[in-house]
Amino acid sequence: MSDDQLNLKIIKFIKETNRKEIQAILDELHPYDIAKLYKDLPRKHRYKFLLFLTIEQLAYLTSELGTKDQIDILHQLGVENSSKVMDLMDNDDLANLLHELGADNIENFLSRMKQEESQAVQNLMKYPPETAGRIMTNRYVWIPFHYTVQDVVDKLRSFAEIAETINYLYVIDDQKRLVGVISYRDLILARSDEKVADLMYSRVISVPATMDQEEVARVIERYDFLAVPVVEHDNVLVGIITVDDIVDVVISEANEDIEKLSAAGKAIDFDTKAWTAAFRRLPWLILLLIIGLLSGSIISGFEETLTKVVALAFFMPMIAGMTGNTGTQSLAVVVRGLITRELDKKTVLRLILREFGVGIIIGFTCGILIAGIAYVWQGNPVLGLVVGCSLLATLIIGTLAGTVIPLLLYKFNVDPAVASGPLITTINDILSLLIYFGIASVFISYLV
Amino acid sequence: MSDDQLNLKIIKFIKETNRKEIQAILDELHPYDIAKLYKDLPRKHRYKFLLFLTIEQLAYLTSELGTKDQIDILHQLGVENSSKVMDLMDNDDLANLLHELGADNIENFLSRMKQEESQAVQNLMKYPPETAGRIMTNRYVWIPFHYTVQDVVDKLRSFAEIAETINYLYVIDDQKRLVGVISYRDLILARSDEKVADLMYSRVISVPATMDQEEVARVIERYDFLAVPVVEHDNVLVGIITVDDIVDVVISEANEDIEKLSAAGKAIDFDTKAWTAAFRRLPWLILLLIIGLLSGSIISGFEETLTKVVALAFFMPMIAGMTGNTGTQSLAVVVRGLITRELDKKTVLRLILREFGVGIIIGFTCGILIAGIAYVWQGNPVLGLVVGCSLLATLIIGTLAGTVIPLLLYKFNVDPAVASGPLITTINDILSLLIYFGIASVFISYLV
Repeated sequence: MSDDQLNLKIIKFIKETNRKEIQAILDELHPYDIAKLYKDLPRKHRYKFLLFLTIEQLAYLTSELGTKDQIDILHQLGVENSSKVMDLMDNDDLANLLHELGADNIENFLSRMKQEESQAVQNLMKYPPETAGRIMTNRYVWIPFHYTVQDVVDKLRSFAEIAETINYLYVIDDQKRLVGVISYRDLILARSDEKVADLMYSRVISVPATMDQEEVARVIERYDFLAVPVVEHDNVLVGIITVDDIVDVVISEANEDIEKLSAAGKAIDFDTKAWTAAFRRLPWLILLLIIGLLSGSIISGFEETLTKVVALAFFMPMIAGMTGNTGTQSLAVVVRGLITRELDKKTVLRLILREFGVGIIIGFTCGILIAGIAYVWQGNPVLGLVVGCSLLATLIIGTLAGTVIPLLLYKFNVDPAVASGPLITTINDILSLLIYFGIASVFISYLV
Repeated sequence: MSDDQLNLKIIKFIKETNRKEIQAILDELHPYDIAKLYKDLPRKHRYKFLLFLTIEQLAYLTSELGTKDQIDILHQLGVENSSKVMDLMDNDDLANLLHELGADNIENFLSRMKQEESQAVQNLMKYPPETAGRIMTNRYVWIPFHYTVQDVVDKLRSFAEIAETINYLYVIDDQKRLVGVISYRDLILARSDEKVADLMYSRVISVPATMDQEEVARVIERYDFLAVPVVEHDNVLVGIITVDDIVDVVISEANEDIEKLSAAGKAIDFDTKAWTAAFRRLPWLILLLIIGLLSGSIISGFEETLTKVVALAFFMPMIAGMTGNTGTQSLAVVVRGLITRELDKKTVLRLILREFGVGIIIGFTCGILIAGIAYVWQGNPVLGLVVGCSLLATLIIGTLAGTVIPLLLYKFNVDPAVASGPLITTINDILSLLIYFGIASVFISYLV
């Protein structure tokens, strides 16, 4: 059945108020599919559709949607039902939603939720966004270390509904300190009277609640974990982070890097309004406009040279563009390399030397090429020499700038992706114009 | 114990040939940590260190290393031991390694491996790189659908070593067709005489072996799966893909996007040699050089205009740079948006209209700003008007080009990230020069 057919069918059943058939369809669908169905429904049918869902289904659906749709649904459901839905939502999703709602609404919603659930989500919100504490969940089963396998099975039975479906169980002592980990598979293979303390693996790797989410992703990626426990001071277990949330983190961090590298402005997606998108992009553009005027004032400083040999202007965009581009290439290598590699002095030195070598190789290749072309095109060997030497020099300097600037920023704890493409491009623009017109001015008597 | 201390300790024990202490340390370490230890050891101790490892530990270590180090270890181990290590390696890792080794060596290695294991890895290598078939593993436990829970537990006991540690078991019928899935948790909660067929969840989402790995990542991300089964025609189960491999896929695909967006050249990392890096970057640079000359020939076409009003050159880099940048911003939004969103006509139309709106807003803001600045700086109101109008027009066109070009490429099944930043920048360069000098030529009599 295609998406469109499914849609038509659901609309038909909504009109017929046929709860049984709608439930039969929903039973076949995963939360993502239910959310897709919901978003594809015409607006007038959406709210009616909600009336046919159970509270659990509403919670699944809400978790899959964006903040705007989430708030929309909660308003439609009314106070009582929306509190019930929020009780069932994953706490990390809920913390995110409440963060977006603003202080007034948070109080309003939290006061109506179950004491225990509202406590849990408030705990999460203590931690700053993008930390382990903020993306962890409290829906997992912990095991006191004195339990037998049978005790564990009994506990699992009563918590079967709420436990995240991962394959580890974390073991704690009486002070809630993390002391071990045991897998479902180990439990299945053990006798029911065996002690958890004898079966568990006690060298657990955990992350502190204040750790940056990108760092957590690195831990999970390195060790190929499906989940990692989150602890506070004194090793007290406060939650777990599962790998499916980490996949989202990795995607959004990569998006952030790309946004910064292209200075695209924060968090613009297909649904962002034109005004918002323009507003987020403008600061960068205005900054670049001002830097672009700097290039202009450099050219105006060489007005005399330019007036004498207007042909110099023909090669200006090519030199500036090539220099900017080679810088961006180096920048991309550095920014992505830093994600998987820690830096020591040796690595840095080797990288800078390598890029210096790259600059020399591409500088000579492109420089000789353009010298020949310029000579043939304009019939002026000195012009060819000036353009060729300029390109050689600017490509070497551009490559080094694209390497050294992000490394320096990294050293001073500034995100190197902020040394974004356009910024490096513009710095290289200015450098390349200075070099080009500088060399041209020296040779000006041979050029005219 | 810090990494350095650990290193010194291991070197000490290697010198003393103290196998017991070395094993005691290794017992505490995860594969990633063992690999880190190995890489940090001075070269002369590395090979000795290998002698203290069990075959299992060698297999773990090898899986964590890069291809060059892997081949190095296999050579050190000699024919017999290296075949044993390869028997124990994950098949997807092994397939990658063999792919790098080249045809001659593949035969050589495969012939010495266990029949069953070499068969498995050859099966994987049938599929092209970056497909589901290539990254799947055959180390998982499948369950015939007529089994009882007790049968499953017995089977698990005999395969405990080799099964990937995930929490699902896939259920197949007598033709090896995938018919269901059951979780370890369900098994623990069930009575031992219950039938798997009654407990299992039969609506399994699977992926075909030929599916692109990026597509597989999308499936796993959407449904928050920890693993997904891989099937061939007729729904025959041939392997599984686990989420930890998908995390690696997501990271490397994001890297590829960034490489393409910045035209940084394929697969350049901190360890790439200068010659190789330069060689990979040069094709792009030479292409851009040629396109840059096109800009030059446009300017030369307006030589007369430029000779009359040299001040026009001052604003050239700013206009070209701004147009290029706004295009790159739009491109980044489109490329990253396509990762999580399927496109339909409605979405495309809305996106283009949105970006058109963005172009108008930023065009007017920046245009008015620069008109004022140009007037004050050069004291020429007509020049201000020309520069302002040009920027307004080029920003709108640049924004649209950055949106429409990648969408068109996507429609014709070309990876839109290939419409990389520099390419869009250069196209926008040319357009902006044509517009700028075009408008200037019209007003030339008022400008001088």
